[in-house]
Amino acid sequence: MLELLERRIREDAEVIGTDVLKVDMFLNHQIDVQLLGAIGKEFFRLYADADISKILTVEASGIGIACITAQFFSVPVVFAKKGCNRNIGTDLFTSEVFSFTKGTSSIIGVSRKYLNANDNILIIDDFLATGSALIGLIDIVRQSGAKLAGAGIVIEKGFQPGGRLIRESGVRVESLAVIKSMDGGSIIFG
Amino acid sequence: MLELLERRIREDAEVIGTDVLKVDMFLNHQIDVQLLGAIGKEFFRLYADADISKILTVEASGIGIACITAQFFSVPVVFAKKGCNRNIGTDLFTSEVFSFTKGTSSIIGVSRKYLNANDNILIIDDFLATGSALIGLIDIVRQSGAKLAGAGIVIEKGFQPGGRLIRESGVRVESLAVIKSMDGGSIIFG
Repeated sequence: MLELLERRIREDAEVIGTDVLKVDMFLNHQIDVQLLGAIGKEFFRLYADADISKILTVEASGIGIACITAQFFSVPVVFAKKGCNRNIGTDLFTSEVFSFTKGTSSIIGVSRKYLNANDNILIIDDFLATGSALIGLIDIVRQSGAKLAGAGIVIEKGFQPGGRLIRESGVRVESLAVIKSMDGGSIIFG
Repeated sequence: MLELLERRIREDAEVIGTDVLKVDMFLNHQIDVQLLGAIGKEFFRLYADADISKILTVEASGIGIACITAQFFSVPVVFAKKGCNRNIGTDLFTSEVFSFTKGTSSIIGVSRKYLNANDNILIIDDFLATGSALIGLIDIVRQSGAKLAGAGIVIEKGFQPGGRLIRESGVRVESLAVIKSMDGGSIIFG
């Protein structure tokens, strides 16, 4: 739980309907890099002893968070690309990700050159809700033979099933802000 | 001219044909955040007196560079989103960008909330070749009424016309590595 982040969500996030949280103002379109500094520092505190060799994320909104976090760990970032073609050959690890926001699925891919069995991966992403993107990234780590140290998520929608499912599968997931509900536009952290 | 970057390009970039330079290893897919630190510091040295209020880039590969550069300036980043719809209404500044690599054009967009006449913008991007992406970003800055301090480019293909055209139009463009030619796979900086 990162208090600075919760405060920022209360002040600047916009709730749309019962389950859309717009954080365009500081995380997803305009980016407050000072806030990212605090986020990266907190991920480092949580995973400092995990011997991370690489940070994995997915384009686009994960990249800034991953890069600033990676500065604390002194490791490279690899970002999965969207809109890959499964038939592109054997040079990519790929996985299918369904976007509930957009109602479409797409293939994410990472070059085989940049993940291997000697790696110990920390996955970083902005949101965890249904878990679809995170499950895709975990799938790619498994395919590469790398170890998975865990995931670091900025905002988890605790009222959606992704976090519980993924933790039950044995993956360590650390979320810096967990939203228990946002019914009626008022955000309750939990 | 950033020597560390030139050395990295010589060692790890891959020349394909006469005009494609793959920097997947350290900039575009896997990201060396220490190198980005040196890049950001150099952009800051070049634009330290320019009174920048915001850094503008375009997803996806510009985001990491922009975020790490923004730490030196203590300003926010705004990234233009790809695949926008021109008809989405009046809440976006949009511009059309043609990708010569892909042979397709797409609309990039920035919310009107995050650029305005009080801003003084530094545009950051990974590549400058034909200039299409940079011209689109400049167009968006003009629409917003913001001042444009200039652009910071990591790698400019000096043998393509974008850099010359944009400088002749009066925009300050600082490129950290300028490639004069890469015929036969050997990279000549200039």
